[in-house]
Amino acid sequence: MSEPKGDIGLIGLAVMGQNLVLNAADHGYEVVVFNRTVSKVDHFLANEAKGKSIIGAHSIEELVKNLKRPRRIILLVKAGQAVDDFIALLEPHLEKGDIIIDGGNSHFPDTIRRYEDLKTRGLLFVGSGVSGGEEGARHGPSLMPGGHPDAWPHIKAIFQDIAAKTDGEPCCDWVGPSGSGHFVKMVHNGIEYGDMQLIAEAYDILKRGLGLSDKEMGDVFTKWNKGVLDSYLIEITRDILYYNDDDGKPLVEKILDAAGQKGTGKWTVAAALDYGVPVTLIGEAVFSRTLSSIKDERVRASKILTGPKPAFSGDKQQFIDDLEQALYASKIISYTQGFMLIREAGKVHEWEFNNAGLGLMWRGGCIIRSVFLGDITKAYQKNPQLESLLFDDFFHAAIDKAQPSWRRIIGLGAELGIPTPAFATALAWYDGYRSDRLPANLIQAQRDYFGAHTFKVLDEFVSQKYPKEGGIHTNWTGRGGNTSASTYNA
Amino acid sequence: MSEPKGDIGLIGLAVMGQNLVLNAADHGYEVVVFNRTVSKVDHFLANEAKGKSIIGAHSIEELVKNLKRPRRIILLVKAGQAVDDFIALLEPHLEKGDIIIDGGNSHFPDTIRRYEDLKTRGLLFVGSGVSGGEEGARHGPSLMPGGHPDAWPHIKAIFQDIAAKTDGEPCCDWVGPSGSGHFVKMVHNGIEYGDMQLIAEAYDILKRGLGLSDKEMGDVFTKWNKGVLDSYLIEITRDILYYNDDDGKPLVEKILDAAGQKGTGKWTVAAALDYGVPVTLIGEAVFSRTLSSIKDERVRASKILTGPKPAFSGDKQQFIDDLEQALYASKIISYTQGFMLIREAGKVHEWEFNNAGLGLMWRGGCIIRSVFLGDITKAYQKNPQLESLLFDDFFHAAIDKAQPSWRRIIGLGAELGIPTPAFATALAWYDGYRSDRLPANLIQAQRDYFGAHTFKVLDEFVSQKYPKEGGIHTNWTGRGGNTSASTYNA
Repeated sequence: MSEPKGDIGLIGLAVMGQNLVLNAADHGYEVVVFNRTVSKVDHFLANEAKGKSIIGAHSIEELVKNLKRPRRIILLVKAGQAVDDFIALLEPHLEKGDIIIDGGNSHFPDTIRRYEDLKTRGLLFVGSGVSGGEEGARHGPSLMPGGHPDAWPHIKAIFQDIAAKTDGEPCCDWVGPSGSGHFVKMVHNGIEYGDMQLIAEAYDILKRGLGLSDKEMGDVFTKWNKGVLDSYLIEITRDILYYNDDDGKPLVEKILDAAGQKGTGKWTVAAALDYGVPVTLIGEAVFSRTLSSIKDERVRASKILTGPKPAFSGDKQQFIDDLEQALYASKIISYTQGFMLIREAGKVHEWEFNNAGLGLMWRGGCIIRSVFLGDITKAYQKNPQLESLLFDDFFHAAIDKAQPSWRRIIGLGAELGIPTPAFATALAWYDGYRSDRLPANLIQAQRDYFGAHTFKVLDEFVSQKYPKEGGIHTNWTGRGGNTSASTYNA
Repeated sequence: MSEPKGDIGLIGLAVMGQNLVLNAADHGYEVVVFNRTVSKVDHFLANEAKGKSIIGAHSIEELVKNLKRPRRIILLVKAGQAVDDFIALLEPHLEKGDIIIDGGNSHFPDTIRRYEDLKTRGLLFVGSGVSGGEEGARHGPSLMPGGHPDAWPHIKAIFQDIAAKTDGEPCCDWVGPSGSGHFVKMVHNGIEYGDMQLIAEAYDILKRGLGLSDKEMGDVFTKWNKGVLDSYLIEITRDILYYNDDDGKPLVEKILDAAGQKGTGKWTVAAALDYGVPVTLIGEAVFSRTLSSIKDERVRASKILTGPKPAFSGDKQQFIDDLEQALYASKIISYTQGFMLIREAGKVHEWEFNNAGLGLMWRGGCIIRSVFLGDITKAYQKNPQLESLLFDDFFHAAIDKAQPSWRRIIGLGAELGIPTPAFATALAWYDGYRSDRLPANLIQAQRDYFGAHTFKVLDEFVSQKYPKEGGIHTNWTGRGGNTSASTYNA
C-alpha cells in the first residue's frame, strides 16, 4: 500500500464544508473528503472539486487511510449528536496523537466534555469557531481554534493559510485550551446578533421614521460604510437595500419579517446569565428575533393597539447623522459587554484570553469584520490588561462624541413609536455602568423586608453594628421574626 | 402503638418552614416537624411552637411514624441536592399513595424529573410554589401546587386553609400536573424581579432626577399605593423610604447598591430563551442586578465616563404623575410577557393553565400581590381564551392613557442620563408588538446573504417563484454558490 497523501480530512459537505475544502485545495493542501450521504462526495468530486487536489472517500476507514499522521480531521457537521456520532465512528480507526477538529457551531460545554473525553484516550480534540459564511469559507474565514494545545503546531500552518488576512496577518490564532475556541465563537455569534439588530433598528427608523425609500437607505449605508461603521454587515445591508427583484422593486421589502435563530445567540445570553454578566444588548437582539417570529400575533395586535404616528418633521440629515452615532455608540457598548463576558469566562475556566488576538481574529474573514475591530485590537495591544473597552481613550472619546445624538435618537424612537430595544438598552447600560450608585440598595432593602435576605452597607457606614461582610437584617416593620433566610429563599 | 396523630409533616425549620408550621397549627392541624440539625427541632418546640399542636421528630422514621395515611410531607429545604437527599431518606419509610410536597424554589425541570421518578414507585409528588416571604408563610402565603393530580384531594383543605384569602377566596388552587406548580412559581419570581426593578428605576429617577428626599419619596409611594399601583411592593417601598436608622437618617441610603439573586429570575429568562418568548423586562431586571453587583468596577467607571448632569427643571408634579403612568404601563407589559411565557410552556408541556386562577393565586399572599392582579383575574375570567393581556379592554385603555407619559419618561431618562432599562425595554416591546411589520426582513436578508439561510416572503408575494413554505435563496451578489445552508449554520 502506498503512503497516504492527504494533509487534512473533512467530513460534511454542506456549503461550508465544500467551500473550506476548495479553499484548502487552493492553498496546495491535499484534502480527503467524506459525507454521510456518500453520493454527495461523488457529486462534489465531479463538479466543484474537479481537477483539484481533493480525494473522495466512501467510508470513514477510507478517509482515515488516506491521511498522513498525525491525522487531522475536520468535522463540519450539524452541532449536537452528529458530532458525537462521527467521533465514535472515527475513534476505532485513529491512533494516539491524531487530531479531531470540530468546526461546527457546537455548544462550548459539549466541546469541554469531548475534549476531556478524548484526552483520556490520547486523541487531541480541537473545537474551532469558523465564521464568514459561505463566502468566508471559500476565500478566507475567521478561524478560532481552541482545545488540546499539542494539536496547534500540527494545524497552525493549514489554519493560518486558509484563514482571512488583514494587513498581512491571518485572522486565526490559538484561542486557548478546552472549549475556549467554541466559547469565543459563540460570543462572536452573539455579537453578530447584536450588530444585525442594531442595523435593523436603524433601517426601521430610516424607513418608518423618515420615510426613506430603499434606494435612499442604500445611499445612507453607502455613506456609513465609509465612516466609523465601515464593516461587512453595513456593506451587505447596502447591497441588500439596492437589490431589486425582477419587477424592479426591492426584494428585501418582500421578505417575511420573522427572523430565525440557530442557538448561538441564545447560548450567549444563557452564558451571560450563568456568569452573571450584564450582556443586555445581545439579550435584546435575541428577544427581538423571537418577537419578530410571532408575526400573526403582531398583525392582530397592530389592529387593536395604538400609538403615535411615526412622522418626523425636523432636519432629516441631522437625524441621519444622529442615527449613525447612536448605532456606533450602541455597538461600542455591545462589544464592551461581549468582552466582559469573555473576561468572566476566562476567570471561571482559567482560560487566558488574548483580547488583542481576538480582535485580530475578528478583524477580517468573519461576519462581524470591521474597521472597528481594528480599533479594538489597538486598544488591547496598547493595554492588554484594559478592564473595559470604554476605559480606552479612543472609545471613551467616541462615546462622548456620540452621546448627545444617541440620547436624541432614544427620545425620538419613544416619541415616534418606533421600537429601538437595542439602542435603548445600550444607553441604559452605559448610564448604569457609569453610576457609582444604582438603586439596587432599595432592592436589597425590599429583599430583606419580605424575605430576611440581609444586606451589606456602603463602605462609609461599616461599623460594629454594620459589619463589612454583611448579613445585616432589619425588622423593617417591627412585626416579623429575626430569623434570616439562610436556607430558604422566597 | 397508638394511632398516629399528625395531619402533615414538615422538614426544614428555617424561617419559612417555622412560619408555615405555626400557620398550619393555628388552623387546627397537627404538624410533625423535623430538621436535619435536630437541635433546631427542640429549640423550636421550646420556643415558637410551645403550647401548639406541633410534634417534634428526631428522625425521619419518627416523623413518618407520627403521620396519618396517606402521609403528607412538605419539604422546605434548600433547592437542589437537599431535596433529592430527603426524598431518598423518606422513600424507604413511605407506602404507596403517600405524598411528598416540595415547597422550596426548585427548578421546574427537577420537579418534572422527581415527579416522573416517584410516580413509577407509587408515590405522589407535588412541587408547590410558596410565596409571601416570612410574613406570608406565617399569616397566609400564596400557594401554587402542581404535580400528581391524585394528591390534590388530600392536600386541598390544608393548603387552602393556610393560604392567604382575597375577598374570601383562597390564594391557592391546583395549577396542573408535573412541574407546572414550580414553573408558575418561577414565573411569579421572575415577575417579582421585574416589579422590583421598575420600582427601583422610579426611585432612582425621583432621587437623582428630581432630587427628592427619602421622606418626599415615601410620600410619593404613599400616594401611588392608593392608585393603580396599589400593591405589597409599593407599600413596603413606602415603609422602607420612611424607615430611619438610629441617627435619624434613612437606612436604605446606607445599604450597598449591589443586588443579589437566587436563581429564579435567571431561570425565567433562560426558559423564555428556550421557548422563544420575548420576556425582555425580566431579562433587563436580572441583568440590572448583575450590573449592580459589579460595584467596584462601576465606581471606577464613574470616575472616567461622563454624561449629562441629572437636573430636571420642568413641572415636578407632572413628572411624578408621568412616572406613575410609566411604571404602570411597564408593569402591564411585564405581566403580558409573563403570561405569554406561561402560555408557551403550557403548549410545550401540555399543561392546561387556568390564567384567571393564576391571577387569583397571586392576588394575595405573595410578594407581587396587588389590586392589579385583581384586574388581571377579571380579564381572564371575562375571556379565558384571551390571547394577550393587552387585548383586554381594561388594559388596552390603561396603556392608551399611560403612553404619552411613558414616552416622555423614556425620553427624559435618556436626556438626564438616568438609566431606565426596564421602562425602556417595556416601551420598545410594546411598539414592536403592535408593529405588523418589524425590520426582521432585513435580518433574514442578511442571513441569506452571508449564510444562505433562506427566507420566506410576505403572504402577498407568495407565488410559484416564492413558495409559502419558504426555503428561498437569492444570490445577492452574483458571486456565491447556490447551496443553501441545510446542515451547517455559521
